[in-house]
Amino acid sequence: MYPPSIQKLIDLFSKFPTIGPRTAARFVFYLMKISKEEVEELVNSISNLKKTVKICSFCFNPFEGEGELCKICSDSSRDKSLLCIVEKETDLITLEKTKKYKGLYFVLGGTVSTFKKKDIEKLKTKELGERIEAHPEIKEVIIATNPTTEGEATALYLERLLKPLNKKITRLGRGLPVGAELEYADEETLGSALEGRK
Amino acid sequence: MYPPSIQKLIDLFSKFPTIGPRTAARFVFYLMKISKEEVEELVNSISNLKKTVKICSFCFNPFEGEGELCKICSDSSRDKSLLCIVEKETDLITLEKTKKYKGLYFVLGGTVSTFKKKDIEKLKTKELGERIEAHPEIKEVIIATNPTTEGEATALYLERLLKPLNKKITRLGRGLPVGAELEYADEETLGSALEGRK
Amino acid sequence: MYPPSIQKLIDLFSKFPTIGPRTAARFVFYLMKISKEEVEELVNSISNLKKTVKICSFCFNPFEGEGELCKICSDSSRDKSLLCIVEKETDLITLEKTKKYKGLYFVLGGTVSTFKKKDIEKLKTKELGERIEAHPEIKEVIIATNPTTEGEATALYLERLLKPLNKKITRLGRGLPVGAELEYADEETLGSALEGRK
Amino acid sequence: MYPPSIQKLIDLFSKFPTIGPRTAARFVFYLMKISKEEVEELVNSISNLKKTVKICSFCFNPFEGEGELCKICSDSSRDKSLLCIVEKETDLITLEKTKKYKGLYFVLGGTVSTFKKKDIEKLKTKELGERIEAHPEIKEVIIATNPTTEGEATALYLERLLKPLNKKITRLGRGLPVGAELEYADEETLGSALEGRK
Repeated sequence: MYPPSIQKLIDLFSKFPTIGPRTAARFVFYLMKISKEEVEELVNSISNLKKTVKICSFCFNPFEGEGELCKICSDSSRDKSLLCIVEKETDLITLEKTKKYKGLYFVLGGTVSTFKKKDIEKLKTKELGERIEAHPEIKEVIIATNPTTEGEATALYLERLLKPLNKKITRLGRGLPVGAELEYADEETLGSALEGRK
Repeated sequence: MYPPSIQKLIDLFSKFPTIGPRTAARFVFYLMKISKEEVEELVNSISNLKKTVKICSFCFNPFEGEGELCKICSDSSRDKSLLCIVEKETDLITLEKTKKYKGLYFVLGGTVSTFKKKDIEKLKTKELGERIEAHPEIKEVIIATNPTTEGEATALYLERLLKPLNKKITRLGRGLPVGAELEYADEETLGSALEGRK
Repeated sequence: MYPPSIQKLIDLFSKFPTIGPRTAARFVFYLMKISKEEVEELVNSISNLKKTVKICSFCFNPFEGEGELCKICSDSSRDKSLLCIVEKETDLITLEKTKKYKGLYFVLGGTVSTFKKKDIEKLKTKELGERIEAHPEIKEVIIATNPTTEGEATALYLERLLKPLNKKITRLGRGLPVGAELEYADEETLGSALEGRK
Repeated sequence: MYPPSIQKLIDLFSKFPTIGPRTAARFVFYLMKISKEEVEELVNSISNLKKTVKICSFCFNPFEGEGELCKICSDSSRDKSLLCIVEKETDLITLEKTKKYKGLYFVLGGTVSTFKKKDIEKLKTKELGERIEAHPEIKEVIIATNPTTEGEATALYLERLLKPLNKKITRLGRGLPVGAELEYADEETLGSALEGRK
């Protein structure tokens, strides 16, 4: 239906997270409407991304600048005794925005729904173990995976994996989120909210 | 549009919580379809409700049976040192279902969005104060209002009101509910989840 | 969890269309809060419903008043050559509100998802055939079932059933509803909108 | 929070239709994860878009290939007496997919919510008038704007604009879409469905 070069780009945009062919088509028409200069700016930004942005050799978070460590990992004021494992980069950013956490992070790179070797190998579990062993100053490992089925399965796997390292292992607290109503809360959440009252 | 006696009943059902005129109309047509015996059963159940069901003289929860106290309030195995204030009867039931709470309850009868005298008088705050003063065995008062704007305002009001009584005052724990994703959590919820990690 | 007479009423309200046990519970607590007079008014309205309201002997729409025919069926200004078959009473009311239809109605009493004898017998198809045969002045039969899967199956069944009666049989027009967007319309709807352009 | 070159790309993706900063961030992390070859493929596709794709000199639809006319406009089997005005390119594709329309199109380039000169000048109304005047074989102009408030206002404006050209002017048919329920249909839609019965 679409000319081949439009269809090609629709296919490429359809691989972007959360994007289906309909939105992908709107992206292409958007690109056709903006100026040549704007297209160039976009193309250059995408091309330069991998050149400019480095992956932190400790936490796997992308960063820009000198050295091998990201801004958080190279910040001497951060609490080196805390390591927070997150599923993905955006979760790290979300946690940073709370300004309530002053420790270090580790970007796991996903979740597992099963404990199959193939699935687990996609995660940076080997590197995680190495980091914790190489840094005895780490006292507490916070597993901050989502409280979803996959996040829970991953947390369970990590707990088993990290147990021999003899660190304090914690999870994010369960409870009622802002705006919730008791009446619609599940029993587990409400039970945690009761136990965690203060 | 509807015959007067149908319209009258639509108007009465439209006053039921969450019900608009469209659903109210469906209720009436449902009643016209069921058997005479089923209508009678419903009518008798409604008529007998206020005769059979009593309001607990301590917690204001409806109950059936002998005496002035509901099953929870008259249960000697419940922990009398804990008093949990809920907005409404269904919240009490929801908390009971968790089987994590063994103390007593107090049904406040609603929430306030402002601290206007007129609004506050709808709540059983006077009775709440009396109960706590009359029962020195109460050590902790758990304010289990919803973490919504109105629930928070009500909790704030109750905290001020109860402060002079010198009891431990707690609130339900904030955190991530089952199934949540960090990325979409608000900063306050996530901050609480971090602080409440365990 | 609830006292028996509350649970009983919750069970009865849970049979109401669209109502689950949670909303049913809120209904009961609503009834406990309103005055004795208001409860009596409701109970009387429900009790009197079947006494006051009659079912029209032609169209099966409920009505109040003298005679055997409802206000629409006994209105001499209505166009007796048109018969509109609707699934349920509220659909009749919805069509009346448009003020675009001046013919008569027939309330079928439901839809079928299969052509099983057992399912079809719940509908007033026998009476429908009798009405049309007894009223040769009917020229057009409008099948106004919902354009849902069940409504379509029912319409198909009715078309076959009524074919031998040699009346003009029509269906409500398909097209784009107010507020729709072409982009999200299904192909059948859009095709009909193109064909039905004017 | 993000390194500058990531933030820059988040800002650029946030300008894409329907995309907010959160999804834009996920796009960037997606780009960081895919291979260098895949990034290059994307960048080349975007860069080549404006070089390869031309805008049809008749209907303003993008196309690829020889000449000045798109595949539809240069297809001698299409019905040249019909011109269908659509808001945007994706609406054209959606209509083509129905396979019910065999005439020509004209991509208006948007809608107006007011009849302000400034707003109207964004649309290709001048070119539309020129096309119709230059092509006396056009007998019917179908205004296929969305049945939304903006689409309706635009249709009204176009009807006034095209009136002096003495062509048959039609609109897409209103009615019930597939899957709709009478009970929830607005009166205008239902009135059209009644009038358009067949």
